[in-house]
Amino acid sequence: MRNLKLTLAYDGTDFHGWQVQPGRSTIQGALAEALQRVTGSSSIPQGAGRTDAGVHALGQVASFTVAAPIPARNLVIALNDALPPAIRVLSVEEVAPDFHPRVSAKRKTYRYRILRAELCPPFVARYVWHHPYPLDEAAIIAAAALLEGEHDFTSFAAVDPDRSERLAAQEASNLRTIYSSRFERHNDELIYTVTGNGFLHHMVRNLVGTFLLIGRGTLKPADLPRILAARNRSANPGATAPPQGLYLVSVEY
Amino acid sequence: MRNLKLTLAYDGTDFHGWQVQPGRSTIQGALAEALQRVTGSSSIPQGAGRTDAGVHALGQVASFTVAAPIPARNLVIALNDALPPAIRVLSVEEVAPDFHPRVSAKRKTYRYRILRAELCPPFVARYVWHHPYPLDEAAIIAAAALLEGEHDFTSFAAVDPDRSERLAAQEASNLRTIYSSRFERHNDELIYTVTGNGFLHHMVRNLVGTFLLIGRGTLKPADLPRILAARNRSANPGATAPPQGLYLVSVEY
Repeated sequence: MRNLKLTLAYDGTDFHGWQVQPGRSTIQGALAEALQRVTGSSSIPQGAGRTDAGVHALGQVASFTVAAPIPARNLVIALNDALPPAIRVLSVEEVAPDFHPRVSAKRKTYRYRILRAELCPPFVARYVWHHPYPLDEAAIIAAAALLEGEHDFTSFAAVDPDRSERLAAQEASNLRTIYSSRFERHNDELIYTVTGNGFLHHMVRNLVGTFLLIGRGTLKPADLPRILAARNRSANPGATAPPQGLYLVSVEY
Repeated sequence: MRNLKLTLAYDGTDFHGWQVQPGRSTIQGALAEALQRVTGSSSIPQGAGRTDAGVHALGQVASFTVAAPIPARNLVIALNDALPPAIRVLSVEEVAPDFHPRVSAKRKTYRYRILRAELCPPFVARYVWHHPYPLDEAAIIAAAALLEGEHDFTSFAAVDPDRSERLAAQEASNLRTIYSSRFERHNDELIYTVTGNGFLHHMVRNLVGTFLLIGRGTLKPADLPRILAARNRSANPGATAPPQGLYLVSVEY
């Protein structure tokens, strides 16, 4: 059996997230269907991260085992013919049998786009969080940098209803290392880019929701160490930012 | 009664075109519903042009009569609150009682976006025609310029099932003046922009379909005068280009 690594981009708006769910349209489900149609194999592709409903990807990684000796280049073309236009396979490469897109991942990068313009054009409404109200952007930028380093992110983690007991025991620690945590202005958008060795469920959206409270003056950047130290989601007044602004940008191995 | 002129942008992907149809989601229907909710009036807004299912607008114009003395600026905000994010009101202004968005229009501009890249990113699939195959772009550019001036465009017109007998009698002439007809390359896109005093049903999409045959070498630019002279859609082998690449850019009065 060959172990194949697929890199994917998708518009998550019209899907119920990554993970296969009976009777619902999901990225993993659409990919499994296309893989079966093209290769005849009914193995389910594994992903680097389970994006939620409405969340997008520029470089999600999945793996899949297949017996058929189809060249990688032909697989890209055949899979894109079989997939809906909202999901594109960017590349396929053969990897070692022990490669697992989640377990083998060293670093992941996410991006969150906040549109600051008064009006949100219909062509970007699916791809940003529209926030036309006043924000202290300097305070947000200062707060984001405070997260770099190793921290326990329990205060920014949702309870994950899908995570099995076994996985929970294996990954009980909520310690994560953040290598880079930066906001930047790009025209009308305030864009957050964060790279870390792993992320808890809803962590990026909860970080953005908390940064927004800092931008509104409800919290100060100096409140972040206290919120982290509490290791309790209810010690964090920040809401979960909506899914459509979030992108899984890349996964490094 | 005040006569109000609304300028609108919309993503047409998830609508069955401009025109109200029973049991179907349309731009005119969504706008009528928002206008009724905001102003209490049940008058149906009239549009400058009936865009087809999947066709977008950057500057569609509609008009609407209303008794309520709501300031135009407040109407923009209230209508955008009531409308789905795929439809945005860009401006509202009071106009003379005899203003009609279609009858009063002097010039309209449409744009058609063709993506020439090998892969169509999921975030633009709703907004372009993906055509990754070889094309003689110089021939297309030369052909487009030949259409400027006054011509009978019957060979580029679809039979319009919605047009009433009365309207057909009023507008029996298929003579239209094209002020500008140009293609340009913008990164990976080949973009057609056309301005005229009016357009027949499917005319821009049929023009683009014919230009594509010229780009493939099936037709030559010099075939266009013969196709126009035939005044018969079946004398034109060009297919109707798909709707998602087309934008109603602006209407001038």
